[in-house]
Amino acid sequence: MTTIIGLVAAFCTTISFLPQAIKTIQTKDTSGISLSMYSLFTFGTILWFTYGIMSNSVPVYLANGITLILALIILIYKVRYK
Amino acid sequence: MTTIIGLVAAFCTTISFLPQAIKTIQTKDTSGISLSMYSLFTFGTILWFTYGIMSNSVPVYLANGITLILALIILIYKVRYK
Repeated sequence: MTTIIGLVAAFCTTISFLPQAIKTIQTKDTSGISLSMYSLFTFGTILWFTYGIMSNSVPVYLANGITLILALIILIYKVRYK
Repeated sequence: MTTIIGLVAAFCTTISFLPQAIKTIQTKDTSGISLSMYSLFTFGTILWFTYGIMSNSVPVYLANGITLILALIILIYKVRYK
């Protein structure tokens, strides 16, 4: 039961960046998005990904690998269209 | 070493929501923020928090407890000022 909650949690927080990335790509409206947030968040996700690889945790590196790609897209748009 | 990377990762991804929350409170500019993202993300964070409590993992419930408060603030502003 605990593992299922953890997996659903990982799925939700990972996939939640998809609508944000789609919205940002479509509208290029990044005025309300914080550059500090996405810089720090992307850096943190790289560390999570590394932690997942080093501790051999498939859910951790898989979820953070996907999140990293999405957060990076949002960050690139923020830098390009600010 | 692996644990340190995990802790720094948790710190970065948690604290990254602070500049976003501050920006959103100050500017009330939520046009570029995705409602779907923050709804799904907040729900996911509640599950992470529950998972942390159930699996007795202090870093997981502590980090996600803080993230939950920050994500909830952003979500409330998004709903109020859209």
